[in-house]
Amino acid sequence: MAHDTRRLAELAGHDAFIQRHNGPRAEDIARMLETLGVDGVDSLIEQTVPAAIRLDRELDLDPPKSEAEALDYLKRLARQNKVHKTYIGQGYYNTHLPAVIQRNVLENPGWYTAYTPYQPEIAQGRLEGLLNFQQTVMDLTGMELANASLLDEATAAAEGMALCKRANKKAKSNAFFVADDVLPQTLDVVRTRAYYFGFELIVAPAAELADHDVFGALLQYPGQSGEIHDLAPLLAAAKAKGIMTCVAADLMSLVLLTEPGALGADIVVGNTQRFGVPMGFGGPHAAYFATTDKLKRSIPGRIIGVSRDARGNQALRMAMQTREQHIRREKATSNICTAQALLANIAGFYAVYHGAEGLRTIATRIHRLTTILAEALARKGIALAHDSWFDTLRLTGVDAGKIHGRAMTHEVNLRYFADGDVGVSLDETTTAHDLDVLFDVLMGEEHGFSVTALDEAVAEGGISGIPAACRRESDFLTHPNFRRYRSETEMLRYLKRLENKDLSLTHAMIPLGSCTMKLNATSEMVPITWPEFANIHPFAPKDQTAGYLQMIDELAAFLVEITGYEHISMQPNSGAQGEYAGLVAIRRYQAAQGQGHRDVCLIPSSAHGTNPASAAMAHMKVVVVECDADGNIDLADLRAKAEQHGDVLSAIMLTYPSTHGVFEEGVREACEIVHQHGGQVYIDGANMNAQVGLARPGDFGGDVSHLNLHKTFCIPHGGGGPGMGPIGVKAHLAPYVSNHVVTPLPGVEADCGAVSAAAFGSASILPISWAYIKMMGARGLRQATELAILNANYIAKRLGEHYPVLYRGRNGTVAHECIIDIRPLKEASGISEEDIAKRLMDYGFHAPTMSFPVPGTLMVEPTESESLYEIDRFCDAMISIRDEIARVESGEWPADNNPLVQAPHTQADLMDGHWERPYSRELGAFPSEAVKAGKYWPAVNRVDNVHGDRHLICTCPSINEYRD
Amino acid sequence: MAHDTRRLAELAGHDAFIQRHNGPRAEDIARMLETLGVDGVDSLIEQTVPAAIRLDRELDLDPPKSEAEALDYLKRLARQNKVHKTYIGQGYYNTHLPAVIQRNVLENPGWYTAYTPYQPEIAQGRLEGLLNFQQTVMDLTGMELANASLLDEATAAAEGMALCKRANKKAKSNAFFVADDVLPQTLDVVRTRAYYFGFELIVAPAAELADHDVFGALLQYPGQSGEIHDLAPLLAAAKAKGIMTCVAADLMSLVLLTEPGALGADIVVGNTQRFGVPMGFGGPHAAYFATTDKLKRSIPGRIIGVSRDARGNQALRMAMQTREQHIRREKATSNICTAQALLANIAGFYAVYHGAEGLRTIATRIHRLTTILAEALARKGIALAHDSWFDTLRLTGVDAGKIHGRAMTHEVNLRYFADGDVGVSLDETTTAHDLDVLFDVLMGEEHGFSVTALDEAVAEGGISGIPAACRRESDFLTHPNFRRYRSETEMLRYLKRLENKDLSLTHAMIPLGSCTMKLNATSEMVPITWPEFANIHPFAPKDQTAGYLQMIDELAAFLVEITGYEHISMQPNSGAQGEYAGLVAIRRYQAAQGQGHRDVCLIPSSAHGTNPASAAMAHMKVVVVECDADGNIDLADLRAKAEQHGDVLSAIMLTYPSTHGVFEEGVREACEIVHQHGGQVYIDGANMNAQVGLARPGDFGGDVSHLNLHKTFCIPHGGGGPGMGPIGVKAHLAPYVSNHVVTPLPGVEADCGAVSAAAFGSASILPISWAYIKMMGARGLRQATELAILNANYIAKRLGEHYPVLYRGRNGTVAHECIIDIRPLKEASGISEEDIAKRLMDYGFHAPTMSFPVPGTLMVEPTESESLYEIDRFCDAMISIRDEIARVESGEWPADNNPLVQAPHTQADLMDGHWERPYSRELGAFPSEAVKAGKYWPAVNRVDNVHGDRHLICTCPSINEYRD
Repeated sequence: MAHDTRRLAELAGHDAFIQRHNGPRAEDIARMLETLGVDGVDSLIEQTVPAAIRLDRELDLDPPKSEAEALDYLKRLARQNKVHKTYIGQGYYNTHLPAVIQRNVLENPGWYTAYTPYQPEIAQGRLEGLLNFQQTVMDLTGMELANASLLDEATAAAEGMALCKRANKKAKSNAFFVADDVLPQTLDVVRTRAYYFGFELIVAPAAELADHDVFGALLQYPGQSGEIHDLAPLLAAAKAKGIMTCVAADLMSLVLLTEPGALGADIVVGNTQRFGVPMGFGGPHAAYFATTDKLKRSIPGRIIGVSRDARGNQALRMAMQTREQHIRREKATSNICTAQALLANIAGFYAVYHGAEGLRTIATRIHRLTTILAEALARKGIALAHDSWFDTLRLTGVDAGKIHGRAMTHEVNLRYFADGDVGVSLDETTTAHDLDVLFDVLMGEEHGFSVTALDEAVAEGGISGIPAACRRESDFLTHPNFRRYRSETEMLRYLKRLENKDLSLTHAMIPLGSCTMKLNATSEMVPITWPEFANIHPFAPKDQTAGYLQMIDELAAFLVEITGYEHISMQPNSGAQGEYAGLVAIRRYQAAQGQGHRDVCLIPSSAHGTNPASAAMAHMKVVVVECDADGNIDLADLRAKAEQHGDVLSAIMLTYPSTHGVFEEGVREACEIVHQHGGQVYIDGANMNAQVGLARPGDFGGDVSHLNLHKTFCIPHGGGGPGMGPIGVKAHLAPYVSNHVVTPLPGVEADCGAVSAAAFGSASILPISWAYIKMMGARGLRQATELAILNANYIAKRLGEHYPVLYRGRNGTVAHECIIDIRPLKEASGISEEDIAKRLMDYGFHAPTMSFPVPGTLMVEPTESESLYEIDRFCDAMISIRDEIARVESGEWPADNNPLVQAPHTQADLMDGHWERPYSRELGAFPSEAVKAGKYWPAVNRVDNVHGDRHLICTCPSINEYRD
Repeated sequence: MAHDTRRLAELAGHDAFIQRHNGPRAEDIARMLETLGVDGVDSLIEQTVPAAIRLDRELDLDPPKSEAEALDYLKRLARQNKVHKTYIGQGYYNTHLPAVIQRNVLENPGWYTAYTPYQPEIAQGRLEGLLNFQQTVMDLTGMELANASLLDEATAAAEGMALCKRANKKAKSNAFFVADDVLPQTLDVVRTRAYYFGFELIVAPAAELADHDVFGALLQYPGQSGEIHDLAPLLAAAKAKGIMTCVAADLMSLVLLTEPGALGADIVVGNTQRFGVPMGFGGPHAAYFATTDKLKRSIPGRIIGVSRDARGNQALRMAMQTREQHIRREKATSNICTAQALLANIAGFYAVYHGAEGLRTIATRIHRLTTILAEALARKGIALAHDSWFDTLRLTGVDAGKIHGRAMTHEVNLRYFADGDVGVSLDETTTAHDLDVLFDVLMGEEHGFSVTALDEAVAEGGISGIPAACRRESDFLTHPNFRRYRSETEMLRYLKRLENKDLSLTHAMIPLGSCTMKLNATSEMVPITWPEFANIHPFAPKDQTAGYLQMIDELAAFLVEITGYEHISMQPNSGAQGEYAGLVAIRRYQAAQGQGHRDVCLIPSSAHGTNPASAAMAHMKVVVVECDADGNIDLADLRAKAEQHGDVLSAIMLTYPSTHGVFEEGVREACEIVHQHGGQVYIDGANMNAQVGLARPGDFGGDVSHLNLHKTFCIPHGGGGPGMGPIGVKAHLAPYVSNHVVTPLPGVEADCGAVSAAAFGSASILPISWAYIKMMGARGLRQATELAILNANYIAKRLGEHYPVLYRGRNGTVAHECIIDIRPLKEASGISEEDIAKRLMDYGFHAPTMSFPVPGTLMVEPTESESLYEIDRFCDAMISIRDEIARVESGEWPADNNPLVQAPHTQADLMDGHWERPYSRELGAFPSEAVKAGKYWPAVNRVDNVHGDRHLICTCPSINEYRD
């Protein structure tokens, strides 16, 4: 072999990750181009991306780093964070994530790469996990119904307010009461929402609740200073006055406190973070939302319910999907879409792992330690602001400066109130030794107290911070799921059993159009569980979070360069939240310009349902702009509507490339039209994966965009969350993005309220996107975009010979996804897009997106991470299915008994003693050679949605019921 | 709810792990005791463990720590290790373990909790992984055959020596040649082995090989100083003289060097550590052993081969199991049992992930950097000890002291030779920046060299350290497995696909008698991949390994207390290695006492096959002691044999409780008899799980025992390794345990040679056992033992009503396992223990141990970690199988066509269009309700062993062949 003349730079492998992230090899690319009849990737891009918007240079980013280099660098950043012992509380607590859950759920791609369980037959595992979560919430809150998570406690409270308004039809008031001991970040978010809903907010002591004429009220339980209100009289008085009540309750405290449901609360919300989910500088964690049975049709977010499958076996599913915002559109009062499924699963498993007994021990320990501390303070003569507590004390009349000095020496974080009071919140991780240190910090070293002696006194004396009237009497977590899996072996097998029921990216391509199910690389995931990122309180002092702040700054700089905007707001913790934040920024800017009356939002008919929902929440009037026959925005209609609403035109929301999967040639003109009429341009970043490195929304007319970091920038979908939806804005909007009341942000107007509980949203998953960009560099990112487009065009080409492909661009190409029209086939055969979706499961695939944006279609997005091998396997399956449909069309198979309508096929089908079908079991379950080489089995037969919605059950069914 | 009066100590959860490790809950224990008719666990133990040996106190260990506490403590220890940049080389190198492999293999219980693949139908995943490993080794060495790993390079070389002797029947010499540039630790181990084999060792320059009359020779390629010998003339000369040759070769260098197989080597051995496996202070890593086709029946260790299943489909399996030491017993020249399967899988996957192209880039980069360094040194006028190199340079005539000073400043580790030379070995992780630092260290900061300029010069000038004659010309890793999985997505799916083929502890109980398949808790596994444990070179300066040394000291102290011995030697890296080390210590001690002629080793007939094999390797004569009808050692026979061999009696090896699963009452007497005749007592610790906290071998007569940390002390089996077999010894033996030539051990005689390559064996997995003991404490450990015994007795009781149970103790109880006799059933029905084993797969279980220690039986060991739920599920399956056998006995089902002989049933069976069996498909594949609730599928039908051994294929078959 000749001497290798490559230089070190080539040998070093700095750019090795690009080839790990992207699926197709050089020879695959050549083959795909040949199939397309195109002479190179550059030509394909030229044919596809309009010249008018194409970026004519490489992005200005650092050269790519190898996985090891990126992680080394990030580790150095992480070490700039300081993990002090934190007693700040205020909705965030230290917790022990059980190692078996950390390794086998949070760090396991079998869990984190799954999609939202819209296809229940291949999602029974995480559906059971989410049902555990709902059961945990229902049991602890004492409510009849809980959803499968919301984004954070603050937005959950805001959703509670909206629900009060929706449901309390009798109330004439437009005012909402908020107790003055609600968490400050919750009040901040509720205030933002209330303003655009047009509600008046009344903030006053909880005891005054019934003195006001309001449609609803929000109480905190225990209050932010630690005080436990006896809710019973407050809720009764509210009920008597026709006020609906929403209680924000700490889930751990409910182990020992009377459940709000028993006291008459209409809604209970809160954070489940301390059920095993690291604080992560503010998120992601799962908020919960629980309510009464009679509000079940109005509850926001997703609910998991129990239904049955085609064989009559019990099967889980997402209930009442018709309530989602894509149906309500401009009538929506919530735009909730992404939830926090992965974190909800973790919290639910935490409850499974500990059971009632374990939670009682934990909560009792927390409360005992707090009581010991209270007792010591009392003996020392230090006053508390309240005489009840679960885990939080507010010391009053103390020398906060002195305490702060001692706290810094001991590397201890406390809460410092503006009035000089000092707050201390204990948690699951607090030990007797920690308490010793706290004694020193709070009382000086000469205090003379012994934890053991005080423990004795407290236990013997029955001393408690929980008022007798507020002590919980009822059982909880009595279902077998919360009893059986208490040894690690049983827990591990349970987690693996559930994992193996589900189809995730570890099995196959998930070709969901508009969802961008790309690789979530391991190296991107590794940092999020580093203690220096995981164990940071969102309100920790700034000098302890330097690593986070620099990482976030760097990521923001990357995104500025990628999008062409001038500032990034990292606060929105979902795409829909980003839409809302962006529209609010526009409205604030316009108000500041004396243009606050502008309230019309133009939205193309092809838009995702969250767009009108977000506009409605920002108190805008939605005006629909039509599309032409090619699926493009009808520029004439746009011009007409813009003119018609000229002086009240606030904005347009458009998606680029369009939800039809096409780079519209007229986008620049559309933006200009809106600008000419004084409007702002919101470009939905959902399809950013088709643009990175090729075009920048900030260049061709956008004023603001949100970015789905969980699509384009590799945050995994987690089975339905977490996500992140930061927004990029032009300079004029930058002062009007969300600020934060506890941790104010530079450059943002002080009165700009928050949209999320934490200043940087779900900060702990930002290293994922940071690492992706760092390891890809400009060239890698551009190549990823090019290959996403190549893969999609290859699929359009191969499938186009068998199915009609809707919508193509000027040169007949598609962008990064393509839409297959099933309507003609359905007409001819009766086979629907849903039958095809279910049949794909038999071939081992997740379905493409169904009936969005066009009913009766399938939208396929392969992303750049899929290999030609996998793409061909998918195309082969689709073509084989087309042949099956032909056999129905020809009458060979009856329309009501064929492998499509019977799909998916399960192991139960194989065992069926009465196989009365015109095709073999083998054809049913093993329709291809690829399947024979490795079969993924759907856990249940086709799930009956109607039955489930009619007989709504959202609690864990007994094991026997599962079997019936 | 009343005020909780528990004290903080109870609420703190320090002992929470005990209930996570142990399977049965309090109510389960009560139920099991009731079934047994025993009034308490104490009573059961009293009935089971002879009073004469019972420990009458709690072990003196620290109180248990919670998982978080133990990990905090261990993290503090870990931080006492210093991870300096290491260029020591000498067989150990830094490496990048690809994150996708780390997370999804090394940190995934689906891989690490599996057992050795003796049951191939449920092990096709890891068998394919090991076949990849073999293929990698074969391709890179150019040999025709490779095994599926050995313990380390040094023992592999010793095995090579033994094979030379076995195979070179014509050679009359008893001498073995070792080149003087073989790694010192290899020479150390080879010397120990040679001594007890009675071989003379000749250590001389490689060039002199053919000058000696020897049966075999060991060469190092490249040599330990970095020099590359041209092997061709050496090997040719050896061959001409009838000398067999073994080449210890660095696998990474073989990417660029001519493969030894092409040059005529008979055997090639080496370490695969640098293929992605962390150094871990010495291990575990997989050594490889490759040879020619004609030596295939003599190769030590396990070989994976390709065979076919009952349907004629290709299926993998362990080939030629009949060669194992349990067959050869006292004729054995190897006692290899545990291998390094998990690490071999990782090394194989590393090759899959990089492919030939990636490996070429890596090896070329390493070599280029080395050449640049050599060029700089040459220009600076610093002499090298050799003018050829791959990755290692030996600087001669330098001021080592000065260099050392600068190296310490830069936190750089080099190799310092005794003669003042300095060694530098580069590796995959070395960067151009590192080279800059090395320039400063080796030449002082005024050197004036630029890496880039030198790179240019080297590349342009074709400068190379590899002699032209030694440059590799041939291809390697051309099989599709090494081409297809290059994107992370494809790699991840491949790993998951293989994982899901295999049955591991994540699916079900693995009731293998004598294997102790207990929980491998996540918290125990977490520390092993911490950089502070993973990235430490075994020969790093002592002040950089303080954390390791303290952890090892603490673990040794725990084990001293648990066993009753006075010293622990942590060196043996498998149980069999421990046996050998223990017997060698006995022989050395006796020799020091002038009793070197004592060479008879008494071994009961029930012993595990490694016992006589180890004795044979220690040059002892094995005399078998008979067992009585109850399976106990026949004390009369023992007495007679001890007397008969009195003055040549060296030792007895006995297992306690016996391999029959019984606490023999006469053990103390047996030990006394041997002591009376001047012999030493070796107690095999394989069954230590029945003793911890209840009895101590050091108390009742043992002089030495090995402990299988991978059984009793929670190191996972890893699909066939790693293991650890430290030995406990009484004080008189302590000076005679293994020492180490590079890192000498205190208190051990200097001339005691090593048995393993590293001083502390597989040090990086010791935190697992440390954490287990730390989290259980004395009470937890005792309870684990008690529950292991309770679980086994419960199984014996339930199954005893359906199958004969062989061997019970005095009161009718068994120890921690029980033997079920299948022989009468086989007589009556023709159904064999193997049929039952395979049928259990249909029920979702791994088989118990088959035909050990008694042919025609099954030995069941549940361990304490299994819950009553799982144990009942297993018993139900066994009872159901008994009913099935009855249907064969009754003639209802033919002897040659029934669900037992057809087992296991696969998905292929269900699809069988010609189902001509007297039972339904459902009964075949879903024989129980439990299986219907969650089915594990064997990947292939019953594997044909005879076919595989007759047509031995140990290379990866093409995908098409798999399908045929």
